[in-house]
This record gives sequence, structure tokens and C-alpha cells, in this order.
Amino acid sequence: MTAKLIDGKAIAQDIRNEVKEGAAKLREKGIVPGLATVLVGSDPASHKYVAMKRKACAEANIESFHHELGEDATQAEVLELVQGLGADPKVHGILVQLPLPNHIDEETILNAVPLSKDVDGFHPLNIGALAMKGREGDFIPCTPNGCIELLDRSGTTIEGANAVVLGRSNIVGMPVALLLVKRNATVTICHSRTKDLADVVRSADILIAAIGRAHFVSADMIKPGATVIDVGTNMIDDATRKSGRRLVGDVDFAAAKEVAGAITPVPGGVGPMTIAMLLQNTLRGAERA
Amino acid sequence: MTAKLIDGKAIAQDIRNEVKEGAAKLREKGIVPGLATVLVGSDPASHKYVAMKRKACAEANIESFHHELGEDATQAEVLELVQGLGADPKVHGILVQLPLPNHIDEETILNAVPLSKDVDGFHPLNIGALAMKGREGDFIPCTPNGCIELLDRSGTTIEGANAVVLGRSNIVGMPVALLLVKRNATVTICHSRTKDLADVVRSADILIAAIGRAHFVSADMIKPGATVIDVGTNMIDDATRKSGRRLVGDVDFAAAKEVAGAITPVPGGVGPMTIAMLLQNTLRGAERA
Repeated sequence: MTAKLIDGKAIAQDIRNEVKEGAAKLREKGIVPGLATVLVGSDPASHKYVAMKRKACAEANIESFHHELGEDATQAEVLELVQGLGADPKVHGILVQLPLPNHIDEETILNAVPLSKDVDGFHPLNIGALAMKGREGDFIPCTPNGCIELLDRSGTTIEGANAVVLGRSNIVGMPVALLLVKRNATVTICHSRTKDLADVVRSADILIAAIGRAHFVSADMIKPGATVIDVGTNMIDDATRKSGRRLVGDVDFAAAKEVAGAITPVPGGVGPMTIAMLLQNTLRGAERA
Repeated sequence: MTAKLIDGKAIAQDIRNEVKEGAAKLREKGIVPGLATVLVGSDPASHKYVAMKRKACAEANIESFHHELGEDATQAEVLELVQGLGADPKVHGILVQLPLPNHIDEETILNAVPLSKDVDGFHPLNIGALAMKGREGDFIPCTPNGCIELLDRSGTTIEGANAVVLGRSNIVGMPVALLLVKRNATVTICHSRTKDLADVVRSADILIAAIGRAHFVSADMIKPGATVIDVGTNMIDDATRKSGRRLVGDVDFAAAKEVAGAITPVPGGVGPMTIAMLLQNTLRGAERA
């Protein structure tokens, strides 16, 4: 392996430790940072994610308030719950675990989260601020912000770099592209409709892979020495595992690490950063309150 | 000249005629589309722009309500004026001519324009919607939307094209980049900090030049056959003119037209589109009201 491994688990732990300290200081002043988690329905993955987030809160001196509604909860019930949390002064951040059941309109629910508690950073006003010079939103979305932290804390220079973002989703691709523009990178947003995609990707000094396809980025698509941040979380069959499956990224890690200058593994790269940035956002919300 | 000339004046006139027809139909239903213009101070260019906009309104069956405040108007006075227009049912669009005098906070004033009357399209919620899949803002900013119209009405294929946006301003570069992503182009946002800028620009099937420097883009930076939209409006010295000055774009038009496949002139390209799209936005505001 020639690439430097960007250890997301260790970097995330550093941030969690920083948050823990910050939260302890706030508690000394009588403010207990609080995150409300809202879970609707019985999706096992969602239950697992929320449990992880609550555990991380506990470790970081952040109180969490968990609210669970059944699969058959009405939109009005979910809305009332979120509005109540919006008005609760003990709650500094509200996390509505997605996806919501199909009969509930996601946009309506998310718009009910007050801007000052939008720790996920997905409110259109927070996204709008990312796209505007001279504006600052209340919160930056967690996974995109985590990608920037991985670049910064691994010593990658963003300013002036050619950054290619593969994928343009609302939750990763587009916001991370906007953050990179703010940091003076030259940014190319490419996607499934891009012509000569391999050539475009090969021009990247910084590659953010967020297209959601297992091993989509092969080693020959990577510029030698590039920094590669792999946001993908794809399950593939693997008969050697007890579960019969294995988590892989959007990048063919085994081959890419021989070409890239620095690279994140999957798991253990971007994944742990999302929770760390959520904790950081919650602390910031509490500091402002 | 080998490039097809994209005649912004003619395309803008087509749109103005469409708006005029739409406004006439609305008047038959008893609704008179109305645009309020707010001018603070004595900047001669601003006075000229507002006069042009009001004349265009009159020609397009749109009523305009003009409000002028002196250079020494207080922020509270401007705010009260804008709030009053926000509440006035005869007003479907509010145009605050920028720049405002230095002692007035632009963000505060613009945030007082109700979203439903933000015909300039600069409210962060409207910009946020541009950056998000599945969201639609109330209005699209005029000049960026004008660039897209020029591409569409000149027969340029946006989907799958490599589009390069030179400049990342809030009013042109960034929003036009977001619109191009929504239309499935592969979009590169470059700027003064970009390394090897000529190479990046040369990869463009569609080039949007909005960097604000006279003749910055030379012919050798243009891919043969590319469509070039020149947003620049720069004044340069010209002894052959009575005024001693001449308006030029960001592109060296005389040389570029021998390389490009299609190109907008300056003046007569993007310029006329801004007012046309403002009228279109005002009509849409009135149709919704």
C-alpha cells in the first residue's frame, strides 16, 4: 500500500473527545446539551442508527431524548411531536431519522424543525447559505462536513485543488461540492449522466465518491497521489463472512490504495464522522441557546 | 465568423412578447400584474437600470410602482417601505435595486421581501431550492435563468454536456451552476483561484463566463464548437467612441467567434435577458396571487 490511510475512526474520536470537553464546560454553566431523536416505524437499520447516536451522545456528555412512533403514526402526530420538541428549551437539536414511512411527507416534517435546532443541516435555508458567499447557515450537514474535516485533519490542501464530486445527492454530493467551492477548490460535480466519466474523475486532486455503487471507482480512474474520500456504503455478497455479506465503498479500495496519495477505508472512513459531526452540531446549538 | 450568433435581444423580445400576452390574459380576469421598484440614493447607473425596467414593464402590460428614497434614508425607513410593499396586494414582485448605500444592511432589507414577491430570486430559500433535488423555489434568479433560456432557445443540448462556469458570484455564477446541475450537465465551477484555468475552460462544451474581467477568455481557451455565454459587462477605453468608452464582455468576442460553435455578443447577449426574466417572474407572481 502506497496511500496514506485516512483513519476516520480516530479522527471522529478526536472530535467526539472535543465535543465531550465542550459539553462538560457547558454543563458547568448549568446548560445540558440535549439531542431529541425521532424514530417512526420499525426499520431495523434506522433503529440501529438511532441507538448508535444515542450511545454517542451519552459518551459525549449530551443528553438524548428518544421518541418512537409506530409505523401507522399519522402525519399530524409526527408533526405535533416535532413541534413540541421545537418548543422544548431542553432540546438543542432534533434528529428525525429518515426514511419516514411512505404516507408521511418528509418535507413537511423537516420544515417543522426550527432552524436553530436543525442539527442535520438539511433545511433549505441552511443549504442556501452553503451556496451563497457571505452567508453562514446555522448548521452544516453532518456527512459533507465530515468529509471536509477528513481532508483538513489529514493535511490535504483544499484551496486551489481540483475537486471532483461523484454524485449530487441532497445529503452528500451537492452540499460537499458547495463546501469545497467555499474553500476555494475548483469543483466539478459529475454523476450518472456524465460523459467520459473516467476522464473527469481522473482529473481530481480530491475525489469525493458518493454515487452509491459498490466498487464503481476503479484504480485507473484515480490520479496518482490524489486524496480519495469514499462516502459509499454498499453491501455486497461475501461467502467468507458469517453474515454472507460485507460493507464496501464506491471505490475499489484494494486497488485504489496503490495509486492514491491518501484514502479513506470503508468501513472506518466517512462513516464514523457523521455521528461525530452530529454531536458537534448539537453542542453548537446548545452553546448558542 | 464561424460561430452562430445567439441573439439575446431577439430572444429577450420573444419572452417579453410572451409575458405581454400572459399579462393581457390576466388583466381580462381583473388581475393587473404589478412590480414595485425601490431605489435608494442617487447612483446614476441604478437610476438608469430602474428606468429601463419600468419602461419594459409598461410595454409588457405590467404596472410598476416606483419608490425613491434619498441617499440619507435610514435603514428603518427602507425596511418600512419594503414591508409595506410586501403587504400590498397590488404588488406581485418587489425589486430592490442594488447596491444600497453602505449604511444600510442589504441582507436585512432583502430578507424583508416576502418569498412570494422575491422576483429577483435571491432569497436564500430560493437559492437553497436550486441546490436541492426535488425542491422548487418560488422564483429563479433572472440572469442565471436568462443564460439557461439562451442555451435552450439557441438549440444547445445541456443534458450530458461539460459545462464550465467561470466565476462563483451569488447573483450569476453559483446559481447558474446549480441550474445546469439540475439539467443534468456535468458542471465545473472555476474562479480566480483555479489552477490551469485555461485547460479547465478548454474542456467546456458550454462555457458561462461570469468573472467580470474584460476579454479574460481568449480564443485559445475555447473548445472548438463550444457554446459560449458571456455574462461580462466591462467598460474599457475606446478612443473611437464619442464617450471614450465601450462595453465588452469577459470573452474576446472577435477572436472567440472564429472558434466557438455559438456565442452571445456583448452588448445584445445576456444583458437583455435579465429584464425579460424579471418580467416573466413578475407575471408568474401575479398568476399565483
